[in-house]
Amino acid sequence: MITRSIFGKPIETDAVLVKPEAVAFQNGVLEKKADGFYYTMKDEEIIYGLGENVRGINKRGWKYISSCADDPIHTEDKRSLYGAHNFIIISGEKNVGIFVDTPGKVVFDIGYTKYDTLHIQTETDDFEIYVIENATPDAVVTEFRKLIGKSYIPPKWALGYGQSRWSYFTSDEVREVVKQYRENHIPIDSLYLDIDYMENYKDFTFNPDSFADFDELVEEMKEQHIHLVPIIDAGVKKEDGYDVYEEGKENNYFCKDADGNDFVVGVWPGKCCFPDMLNDEAREWFGNKYKVLLDKGIDGFWNDMNEPAIFYSEKRMDEIFNKLAEYGKMNLDVQTFFACKDLVLGMSNNDEDYASFYHNYKGQKVCHKDVHNLFGYYMTRSASEAFDRIVPDKRILMYSRASYIGMHRYSGIWQGDNMSWWSHLLMNVKMMPSLNMCGFLYTGADLGGFGADVTEDLLIRWMSFGIFTPLMRNHSANGTRRQELYLFEQSKMFKDIISVRYKLIPYLYSEYMKAALNDTMMFRPLGFVYGKDEIARNVEDQLLIGDNVMVAPVYEQNAIGRVVYFPEKMKMLRFSEGSVTEEQIYEKGHHYIKMPLGDVCIFIRDGYILPIAEGGEYVDAVTSDSLTLYACGDAPAPYALYEDDGNTKEYDMANCRMLTLE
Amino acid sequence: MITRSIFGKPIETDAVLVKPEAVAFQNGVLEKKADGFYYTMKDEEIIYGLGENVRGINKRGWKYISSCADDPIHTEDKRSLYGAHNFIIISGEKNVGIFVDTPGKVVFDIGYTKYDTLHIQTETDDFEIYVIENATPDAVVTEFRKLIGKSYIPPKWALGYGQSRWSYFTSDEVREVVKQYRENHIPIDSLYLDIDYMENYKDFTFNPDSFADFDELVEEMKEQHIHLVPIIDAGVKKEDGYDVYEEGKENNYFCKDADGNDFVVGVWPGKCCFPDMLNDEAREWFGNKYKVLLDKGIDGFWNDMNEPAIFYSEKRMDEIFNKLAEYGKMNLDVQTFFACKDLVLGMSNNDEDYASFYHNYKGQKVCHKDVHNLFGYYMTRSASEAFDRIVPDKRILMYSRASYIGMHRYSGIWQGDNMSWWSHLLMNVKMMPSLNMCGFLYTGADLGGFGADVTEDLLIRWMSFGIFTPLMRNHSANGTRRQELYLFEQSKMFKDIISVRYKLIPYLYSEYMKAALNDTMMFRPLGFVYGKDEIARNVEDQLLIGDNVMVAPVYEQNAIGRVVYFPEKMKMLRFSEGSVTEEQIYEKGHHYIKMPLGDVCIFIRDGYILPIAEGGEYVDAVTSDSLTLYACGDAPAPYALYEDDGNTKEYDMANCRMLTLE
Repeated sequence: MITRSIFGKPIETDAVLVKPEAVAFQNGVLEKKADGFYYTMKDEEIIYGLGENVRGINKRGWKYISSCADDPIHTEDKRSLYGAHNFIIISGEKNVGIFVDTPGKVVFDIGYTKYDTLHIQTETDDFEIYVIENATPDAVVTEFRKLIGKSYIPPKWALGYGQSRWSYFTSDEVREVVKQYRENHIPIDSLYLDIDYMENYKDFTFNPDSFADFDELVEEMKEQHIHLVPIIDAGVKKEDGYDVYEEGKENNYFCKDADGNDFVVGVWPGKCCFPDMLNDEAREWFGNKYKVLLDKGIDGFWNDMNEPAIFYSEKRMDEIFNKLAEYGKMNLDVQTFFACKDLVLGMSNNDEDYASFYHNYKGQKVCHKDVHNLFGYYMTRSASEAFDRIVPDKRILMYSRASYIGMHRYSGIWQGDNMSWWSHLLMNVKMMPSLNMCGFLYTGADLGGFGADVTEDLLIRWMSFGIFTPLMRNHSANGTRRQELYLFEQSKMFKDIISVRYKLIPYLYSEYMKAALNDTMMFRPLGFVYGKDEIARNVEDQLLIGDNVMVAPVYEQNAIGRVVYFPEKMKMLRFSEGSVTEEQIYEKGHHYIKMPLGDVCIFIRDGYILPIAEGGEYVDAVTSDSLTLYACGDAPAPYALYEDDGNTKEYDMANCRMLTLE
Repeated sequence: MITRSIFGKPIETDAVLVKPEAVAFQNGVLEKKADGFYYTMKDEEIIYGLGENVRGINKRGWKYISSCADDPIHTEDKRSLYGAHNFIIISGEKNVGIFVDTPGKVVFDIGYTKYDTLHIQTETDDFEIYVIENATPDAVVTEFRKLIGKSYIPPKWALGYGQSRWSYFTSDEVREVVKQYRENHIPIDSLYLDIDYMENYKDFTFNPDSFADFDELVEEMKEQHIHLVPIIDAGVKKEDGYDVYEEGKENNYFCKDADGNDFVVGVWPGKCCFPDMLNDEAREWFGNKYKVLLDKGIDGFWNDMNEPAIFYSEKRMDEIFNKLAEYGKMNLDVQTFFACKDLVLGMSNNDEDYASFYHNYKGQKVCHKDVHNLFGYYMTRSASEAFDRIVPDKRILMYSRASYIGMHRYSGIWQGDNMSWWSHLLMNVKMMPSLNMCGFLYTGADLGGFGADVTEDLLIRWMSFGIFTPLMRNHSANGTRRQELYLFEQSKMFKDIISVRYKLIPYLYSEYMKAALNDTMMFRPLGFVYGKDEIARNVEDQLLIGDNVMVAPVYEQNAIGRVVYFPEKMKMLRFSEGSVTEEQIYEKGHHYIKMPLGDVCIFIRDGYILPIAEGGEYVDAVTSDSLTLYACGDAPAPYALYEDDGNTKEYDMANCRMLTLE
């Protein structure tokens, strides 16, 4: 049952497509007080949700703030990451979903201030709230997802492995990386272009020196079954004569300051203007720009810096330098030191800057801070709507850094600029189901970690989990240790691990499509399926992928194995050197399982089948002609294998064929 | 067997007291190459050691740099924390200890660059290296510890619980906190004074407004069995008329710049000079200053900022402001932004500053960078040597932030400015044995975490482990959520947990004294005792405390229990609401055990006794007159209970009396 209530005059977010008749809010599960909504959590209740955030699958014990933030240090004390995903589920005896629909800040205090108290507070008095009561968390999710519309579906090749780096600086460097992958027979489908492929970081341009042969490069890559995936940034360089800037300026497509002038910020290209992604016309215009790349044969993109990230605003930098000049004349004491440090550290992504520019949204002048969480969503929608116009029958890979619920219809997300930390491998695991609940199915983390230096064993373990995530990309930052897999001593081990991914493609694609078409989750916490099992409900480091399998990644350095909790009998399939070397039944309970580096263990649920293909070095080479069916139990349920061409949009559950163990 | 080899002309560190005859280095376990020492690690070998550092008990898989660093963000990518502890043990078929004795930087690349390769590299060509081969890791540790001398022994009251905050700003605030503890019957022995008790952060002064009644305060606290523990910082405020500054300046006791002028840095008090702790005369002078506080009845101290931390040097700040002024005149673009950010972020603890001041060490002018890792050690030695002169028969509590091996004879350490992160609770666990190996027995982390906001459950879980660490202090930073235990809803739970500590005092004190007097470890990894058990060797989240018990803390938010690995049969003692409510035998293997918030589980090893006292609200109130003996097995070994007056220095193993189960 869904109850929708409206408070004040909310700004429309376009998150919800199917709106039930609104009713006056009545205290029930939630109690409305002057400062927000309250709920007293029972000891055994779990709070799921909040999509992209720090901490557990169970979000209890922290205060989260929905506010898209470009903050690369994802330690557990952070309150916001890049996305704003205002959906939670209270799960216990009853299961209740809550969605707060507002483009401004929302505070979810889930037992932080008071141990047993959930408190939800919006920054504005104008918002909508949906309360969804149903029998199970799965049912709550599906009911919610039916409101917000079907999830984005990528081209099938986008389930392949992708290699990225900030940056590959020349087209020859791209060629070299791909050559190494192909020569080492490490399967791969895509190569990413970070900001340096552009001329001075200008969107929709190409570096005339280092990527002069961009067109040939795309062609060569295609021949090698490699998709190039360029980045697009939110800020448009303020440069006379640059067509995108000139058009945006001419047509008033940029966000404005209070005086009606184009709002100028500093980002990668230096001084930039932000296209007003919330303005229908500007959005159409900006989206059409992607045609420059589509026309060259590009069929995948990632949208970055769209919280939007602001290194500095012109005005703030001026002010800061004036203050610093004053300080310089004063006694250089400890107060000066701290003041100076605070000034510089507060320069970026400053709330005052977010409060000082404006959109033209649905005909109204709206301050950015009131619609902050929509910016990345609408940038990505801009591209996606353009793809529908320009290449209506073709699926285009797209994912974004910033997001809001609703954007899940247009693209995926990657889990932001994480670090080469073991804790971030575990965070990757925990975010998968949290994001799935909110509709984001195409997602994954930067495998190996973006910032900081990776270790070989971290990369091995992370890959061993990454082979299960729809988005499987290895990405790392400028200045950090390189993470291309062929560079490591144990590159054979990486090849073997990734080969398992390609053997799983039929299953993973099938489960992805079913989740997208049926409004279900591909990645689920154990508690969703084993809701009566108190231990299963509290497992934070194992997941169910589809209905058929469970995974239990190793995420601790130097571990030689781990304890796995089996909520019921399951069969372990162990892949060593890329092939199944062991099938072992485990009964319900905790079991310690050795997992040496390089091994991949998958657990098949009792009564289920897992189809394994022969694999290949790119997704198109993987066939489902000769699947090997592994099963747990004697009479497993037939497996519905979803198949289609992977490129057009004729999605249909009727595309499933049933696989049965003879 | 110990082999000592000298390279070049090392600077004496006074780490080793008993020096075996030096021999020419010969390749054996280690292979010497032009760029350092190499060892090829076998898969099953564990590398223990390195004292205060990030990552695991097994240090494999990272590159660590011994360089005392004031860096409050202890994420797993950090290479240095506050201490420099150049001792490791290679543990497998053979057990080999390696100690690199040099006061400069040492790089321990333990399988970071090359997965199976240990590489040790000193910054200088002048150093000593000790290679210790023995049958077990325990034997290696004891052999090493006999070289470096007996560990510091605190007064017994210092095993009590301590409450700290940066800062208690007035003497009345101190009174109020103590009053709350006593009224709530939460056991406590000490209250900490952070920098604000001083007048303008000047060492050995008292704030004339907020702590005008310091003497009375000390007296009142004593009546309530509370020891006040003030902080002492490394930097002496440069202020005309301030006696400590004037004396230091007059007598050339401060570190000098290249021109022979007093080197001036900015720290808490503003402009400061560093007493030349390495200079015998200056050290004696500085140590004597503690008498100001001793005379007032103070019997405990913590030495801080002694890496030494430098917020800025006068010279660097000048330079930076000149550069910033230049930038201000230029085009304020993205390059300016990054340059400006780098300048400001590089202002503190800059290597160039460490290379630009000098000590007078053993009659030689020595550049600070070459003896950097000795500074904190010698500051603390300064105090400790003064205590021996001023109050020779009395034990004084002392611990330091920065350290080097050798300092373990003079004091303990706390584990630095950690965060209210669950991962730091686990880091606390892992550091205990690593520090014990290096001689640091009196240690613990800031319980609840220093930086960031704590949650009630984190504090509960952290306390539940903290009750085992010799230093048991709850400390938190200015601006973070307060952590005084009576402020929480579940303050009764805190009272109960801490009451368990006081019931354990006879055991903990006894085990501390035995470790100190016998050069053994109080906290050991499971692999030290169960070296043949591959699973035990790889356990990173359980510890042995003394010979008799094992602990297995909960360190994950919302966990309702955890899996414990039993390398042999043990008996669990469960304390609920502070009392033993369950005794349960577990057989060898993995077992899932429920551990609700507030419960404390202790595991008694087979054949051993654990004595439990009745407890008390302060250490002096705890008696061993009516101990309850719990045991695992029918004929447990008698327990040697060490007892003494807890205040004087007549340590003697003969003080043990045997407890037997009748």
